[in-house]
Amino acid sequence: MDECQDYGLTRDTERKNLNLNPLQRGGVLPLEARKALYEFSDGYSVCDYCSGRLDEITKPQINGFLEDLAGFINTDFARTVHGAREGKFAVMHALCEPGDTIVIDGNAHYTTHVAAERVGLNMVDVPNTDYPNYEVTPESYKEVLDDLYDQGEEVSLVLLTHVDGNYGNLADARSIGKIAHDAGVPLLLNCAYSMGRLPIDAKALNADFVVGSGHKSMAASGPIGVLGLKEEWADIILKRSDRAQVKELEMLGCTSRGAPVATLMASFPHVIDRVKKWDVEVKETRKFVETLENIEGINQLGKKPKEHDLVRFETPIFDEIAKHHTRRGFFLYEELKKRKIVGIKRGQTKWFKCSVYGFSAEQKEYIAETFVDIASKDY
Amino acid sequence: MDECQDYGLTRDTERKNLNLNPLQRGGVLPLEARKALYEFSDGYSVCDYCSGRLDEITKPQINGFLEDLAGFINTDFARTVHGAREGKFAVMHALCEPGDTIVIDGNAHYTTHVAAERVGLNMVDVPNTDYPNYEVTPESYKEVLDDLYDQGEEVSLVLLTHVDGNYGNLADARSIGKIAHDAGVPLLLNCAYSMGRLPIDAKALNADFVVGSGHKSMAASGPIGVLGLKEEWADIILKRSDRAQVKELEMLGCTSRGAPVATLMASFPHVIDRVKKWDVEVKETRKFVETLENIEGINQLGKKPKEHDLVRFETPIFDEIAKHHTRRGFFLYEELKKRKIVGIKRGQTKWFKCSVYGFSAEQKEYIAETFVDIASKDY
Repeated sequence: MDECQDYGLTRDTERKNLNLNPLQRGGVLPLEARKALYEFSDGYSVCDYCSGRLDEITKPQINGFLEDLAGFINTDFARTVHGAREGKFAVMHALCEPGDTIVIDGNAHYTTHVAAERVGLNMVDVPNTDYPNYEVTPESYKEVLDDLYDQGEEVSLVLLTHVDGNYGNLADARSIGKIAHDAGVPLLLNCAYSMGRLPIDAKALNADFVVGSGHKSMAASGPIGVLGLKEEWADIILKRSDRAQVKELEMLGCTSRGAPVATLMASFPHVIDRVKKWDVEVKETRKFVETLENIEGINQLGKKPKEHDLVRFETPIFDEIAKHHTRRGFFLYEELKKRKIVGIKRGQTKWFKCSVYGFSAEQKEYIAETFVDIASKDY
Repeated sequence: MDECQDYGLTRDTERKNLNLNPLQRGGVLPLEARKALYEFSDGYSVCDYCSGRLDEITKPQINGFLEDLAGFINTDFARTVHGAREGKFAVMHALCEPGDTIVIDGNAHYTTHVAAERVGLNMVDVPNTDYPNYEVTPESYKEVLDDLYDQGEEVSLVLLTHVDGNYGNLADARSIGKIAHDAGVPLLLNCAYSMGRLPIDAKALNADFVVGSGHKSMAASGPIGVLGLKEEWADIILKRSDRAQVKELEMLGCTSRGAPVATLMASFPHVIDRVKKWDVEVKETRKFVETLENIEGINQLGKKPKEHDLVRFETPIFDEIAKHHTRRGFFLYEELKKRKIVGIKRGQTKWFKCSVYGFSAEQKEYIAETFVDIASKDY
């Protein structure tokens, strides 16, 4: 083969405008991480001084970082993985046998389903409370676990999505973890949308395992994630190879052998600092929601008041405008983009998800006022 | 937690000197890939325009790239994975059941062992020819497969390391693939040290599956790898989820959701170009080996003449110097470093692995002459 296509490797639009895509808000690199990316650009760059295991490398000091990280989330051990999904798969694969039953929440991310299917597990869903709040409650977890017990069905693992990606609801992990433990089942808490945004204390949340996402919520360049666990599970999850004796099987020896782990490490002081200011982010998100809900025909879905920056709105007003607008459903995207705001899918007007996490108070206000402006304009 | 340690996130020594570590030679980024790293630094940067699957994203054009990539290695399908090991695990996990037997070469990388152990497979090793050539031959593969057949043992998969990381021996994949096929078993070819350095034609090599490593040999920022496969295996390896219907199970939906895939794409024209010049690299490696072997007490191990840039030398001369040198075993590392050469492990003098891949002819000559100089000096 002689030629290849032009792959369009630019990201100007997303870098140079205000991007409301919740997926992208928590992964923006601070300056220190950009520097680390430059230092560790090449190939296997973090592996120069490896003497067998990534998590034990001292230059750069990955081992020290993992200790600090375990302290930060209050787990006995921490490892980097390629992302939250790979962490979930590792736990399920090590802990469960094909055919085992696990209990998951009705707001679980698709990667929970895919990880469980890849292991061959039987998933039982705990339903959410449906429109308009879509809450996952401790009571419904208890009901599902009690039912399974009555049916004589053994449960290998309970999984809970700490903050889900559809409604941005913060689940009551502590209570659900207690219910799981009362049933004799460990809890895996998916913190992809929480770890790195809000404080995580795995032990206080009754979580045996936590997974986090560097690219989603820890200001890191993807793909990179975090797996934290309690000591009692270490023999199973961190089991070593018989043939390559220092290597951990579920990590396939080493996981994040490249720049992403360097960015996660470089961003860590920034992340430690920002989770302390989580209450400010929540307050500003609530103000943002209030301004938008003052527009007739815009309504926040999910739990109220908001406890997370990911917000889902139903927006019949924009759908109404789209019916008559010459640009039809594209008008909203185009009106926003004219005002330097992106991240709402083109053509979508019935509802959208967004986040103003990490923007300054002024930027947040500008974004909210822009929606007011677009909604009140004559088309 | 309030404070974290200083993790020493610099890589000056490796970036600013001539680095002979074979692990690092093929992963150096060209300028275009550094630009892509800048563009796609943040979090989930390649996922702005995702409509469900990473391999189908058109902005940047990941789908077009994967088509080109499949063409480049002559497979029917190509996917990016997190690295060669993750690709091997995906194939083994999808294709085999725990307890199945696979046949692997005696030069296999530890990640082959770890991947197979993680799936619960029984490994049968094809021995190499031992000192000094350590070759893996088609004859020994045939013998092992015949023996297993005679014992009534079913074999699920044959794995071959195309170029191994200990001796840099290029194995006769085409013949071994033929032997595997004659025994009715598919071949997985581990091209971590070949794909991106030398031309790979999976079909000509009788490989049903190939894995490659972006950070090891494709001028990409890690972690990133390539999995290529023949159409007849697509239903198994690329099986989709029941619940999340577009998602491929073994990929956990999406794999390389971040900057590394952007660097792999940006480097691709450079990689296409450099594999065409592989014969020059081999010629220059042979010349390098010749200069070093002219020193009494330095001997190349592995197949002769070299067919790959990774070279292992036994170096009794340096071991002899170390015995009397005030710096003992550290002298070699220190003498090299004074001359701006790094990548040989500190304290190692009995033998070492190195590579001059990607250096200019002048740099290669300078490196060879430096070894001559160090060997002939009075200490």
